[in-house]
Amino acid sequence: MRALEADVVVVGAGLAGLSAARRIKQAGREVVVLEARDRVGGRTLNEPIGDGKIVEIGGQWVGPTQHRALSAIEDLGLETFPTYGEGRNLFERRGRIRSYRGTIPKLNPLALAETGVVIARINRMARGVDPEAPWASPEAGRLDSQTFASWIGRHVRTAAARDLMKLAIWAVWAAEPEDISLLHVLFYVRSAGSFEDLIDTEGGAQDARVVGGAQLISLGLADALGDSVELSSPARRIEHRPDSVAVASDAVTVTARRAIVAMPPVLAGRLVYDPALPSIRDGLTQRMAQGAVVKCMAIYPEPFWRAEGLSGQVTSSDGPVSVIYDNSPPDGSPGVLLAFLEGRAARRASGLAAPERRELVIGCLRRFFGDRAGAPDAYVEKAWPNDEWSRGCYGGFMPPGAWIENGPALRKPIGPIHWAGAETAVVWNGYMDGAISAGERAADDALSALAG
Amino acid sequence: MRALEADVVVVGAGLAGLSAARRIKQAGREVVVLEARDRVGGRTLNEPIGDGKIVEIGGQWVGPTQHRALSAIEDLGLETFPTYGEGRNLFERRGRIRSYRGTIPKLNPLALAETGVVIARINRMARGVDPEAPWASPEAGRLDSQTFASWIGRHVRTAAARDLMKLAIWAVWAAEPEDISLLHVLFYVRSAGSFEDLIDTEGGAQDARVVGGAQLISLGLADALGDSVELSSPARRIEHRPDSVAVASDAVTVTARRAIVAMPPVLAGRLVYDPALPSIRDGLTQRMAQGAVVKCMAIYPEPFWRAEGLSGQVTSSDGPVSVIYDNSPPDGSPGVLLAFLEGRAARRASGLAAPERRELVIGCLRRFFGDRAGAPDAYVEKAWPNDEWSRGCYGGFMPPGAWIENGPALRKPIGPIHWAGAETAVVWNGYMDGAISAGERAADDALSALAG
Repeated sequence: MRALEADVVVVGAGLAGLSAARRIKQAGREVVVLEARDRVGGRTLNEPIGDGKIVEIGGQWVGPTQHRALSAIEDLGLETFPTYGEGRNLFERRGRIRSYRGTIPKLNPLALAETGVVIARINRMARGVDPEAPWASPEAGRLDSQTFASWIGRHVRTAAARDLMKLAIWAVWAAEPEDISLLHVLFYVRSAGSFEDLIDTEGGAQDARVVGGAQLISLGLADALGDSVELSSPARRIEHRPDSVAVASDAVTVTARRAIVAMPPVLAGRLVYDPALPSIRDGLTQRMAQGAVVKCMAIYPEPFWRAEGLSGQVTSSDGPVSVIYDNSPPDGSPGVLLAFLEGRAARRASGLAAPERRELVIGCLRRFFGDRAGAPDAYVEKAWPNDEWSRGCYGGFMPPGAWIENGPALRKPIGPIHWAGAETAVVWNGYMDGAISAGERAADDALSALAG
Repeated sequence: MRALEADVVVVGAGLAGLSAARRIKQAGREVVVLEARDRVGGRTLNEPIGDGKIVEIGGQWVGPTQHRALSAIEDLGLETFPTYGEGRNLFERRGRIRSYRGTIPKLNPLALAETGVVIARINRMARGVDPEAPWASPEAGRLDSQTFASWIGRHVRTAAARDLMKLAIWAVWAAEPEDISLLHVLFYVRSAGSFEDLIDTEGGAQDARVVGGAQLISLGLADALGDSVELSSPARRIEHRPDSVAVASDAVTVTARRAIVAMPPVLAGRLVYDPALPSIRDGLTQRMAQGAVVKCMAIYPEPFWRAEGLSGQVTSSDGPVSVIYDNSPPDGSPGVLLAFLEGRAARRASGLAAPERRELVIGCLRRFFGDRAGAPDAYVEKAWPNDEWSRGCYGGFMPPGAWIENGPALRKPIGPIHWAGAETAVVWNGYMDGAISAGERAADDALSALAG
């Protein structure tokens, strides 16, 4: 076993870990990053599709209020381009497909009015949640005692508006309304700004894409870190004393003064800690689970739907594919349709053999875009729940009761161990932007401790 | 690293693992049990208090329908004795202490009537749940979409009956009503028989105790297994092929044809599996968390409360101590009061320093039993959430949404790996009885596979 020394050891070379490491290096401190995979980028991942082009089978979008992500992109000399959105979107519900423009599909006027009221109500409730400490918000106990499904059941009357809310939970949390605490939904909305910030394409979280793929951010950060990043080195054990820490991976052991664990809580909970961690932290890792996404890309000679006046954007409350986007490269060639399986549909599809999963997804694409969609030139996908180093996407969610009891452990350092990862972010929790700010916050805390 | 071979390797020497190992050995197969601790018994634990006497700071009770537990006790030549229950019980609510006899405290007639109706309703709903497959029960989706707190909020009107239901959740699940899926509550009730079976002392789950302490069951089973039990050998990694398995612990590696993992799902999820496990199983280990209990025993020269006509049994919906029992040895000497912190109170108290926790508990005992209770000769306790090899008690619970998606993975073998532990039991899930039947069921499955 090789042995290394550093001021700070970072566990995980996703956006959070790499952002932390960059800041530590910029402060003139020695850093080593341990990464389980043979690549960096965590839940961002480019897949080459020939001709020097890629598709992203992990996180990809940035929005106008995601300042940390946008400045990381700018710092690295990368560029963004708008998500394709010209033409009509499609919405499927109870076997019927309608076309529409904008974010909210055409529904009957009553359901449409109610959807607006419900979103306004969620935004209003979310403004009462402190994103730094959701557990200390007024009425936190009541908000954390119920699932979002229970809240919908009591406060949303029309079936169509209920279906839209379910779709929003799939699209944003990659989980089911019954999985998630109402307080978690409100925290997440508050952390992003508003419900619309989460669900909107133009002006929202799906506004723009990174030319060359979002994994370039991580690749750029890693490049600047040089040989400080140790790939194929899954961390297994963290021995910690008040002012020192030793992290043992399969390939190398790093001794340092501080550690930053930049992983989702559930995966961080699977490391061995010596001494064992306080129960409030352990309980957090028992309860905050990861959402489930299968991200699929069908590649065609051209984006044929554009000529038909379609944006390629689809939402379906029937599923199993819940959300579709035109995910073609900036120059529109080749044509790429991105299909998401989310929540229960993703959990189920993750258990299928790859050919069956493909058939399921292509069948959905054909339903919306006709026979041409049924014969892609290529098909690539990633079932994130099956990936042992992520075990889900987009991010972690809290079931009822967890925020108020275990929330205080989410970011609180334990001895020399700091916690990062998108799940620990206060702003844009669960997003690339949140991962970056979480890494930087943990790095600042570690640097303060080193200086102190 | 020592290397051993066996037909079956069992991970965990609690009641489930030891019961599995006994059955495998009885079938003439070679077995090795790997245990993380330097003792057997898992969540059962005797603590000597002098004069050859003990108190149990882990699981202790058996009830008349717990046939597996009772026959294990009989097989080992052990005896039971009735839980002390003579005299009046105390019930505290909203600052007022009342005395009563039987299981249900004196309340106003309306609340008392409603409590009866609510319990009958829970029993009726529970009869509709298939304990082998709760996810396939009629209306499973609806029942699993809400917390038990939401169900109480909608179906229980009087404040006193609500407080009693909360107390029952503390006492049985060691969690809060908002933590648990309604479907999980119903499954658990069904698995035990009825709500009364869970909460009753006489005739219920708290009916009787084991002379010498319940850990004697595990110690007896381990004794018969001789040097097949490897202590201080925490399993870390399971490499599995269709017909073979290698389990690496810190002390020894065991190669076998089948493995039985006899641990709570969340702890089983913290081992490294090669190849990685299917996502439905991994998701189960992300979502099924452990309840929280601090079990405390105050020891007095004699059970002075008996002379005052008190049974020593207390329930308090005010907390932090929620349940108290007279836990004196069969001969009534010394006098022992057992105090439980459960659910949130236990999670919070687990984060306190031991002296503060003691003060908290003794303060509660003094409230009910006067100044003499404030000066015990000795005080012993166990904060189970802090124990890294249990990380909670009494058992695991499902938050909303987990049973219907991940439930099918609870017992389903993966290649050569079988799953045991009280959390996998169909009858008396979460109890010593369930642990024994779970171990025996996993052993039978493994033996069938060996013969096949």
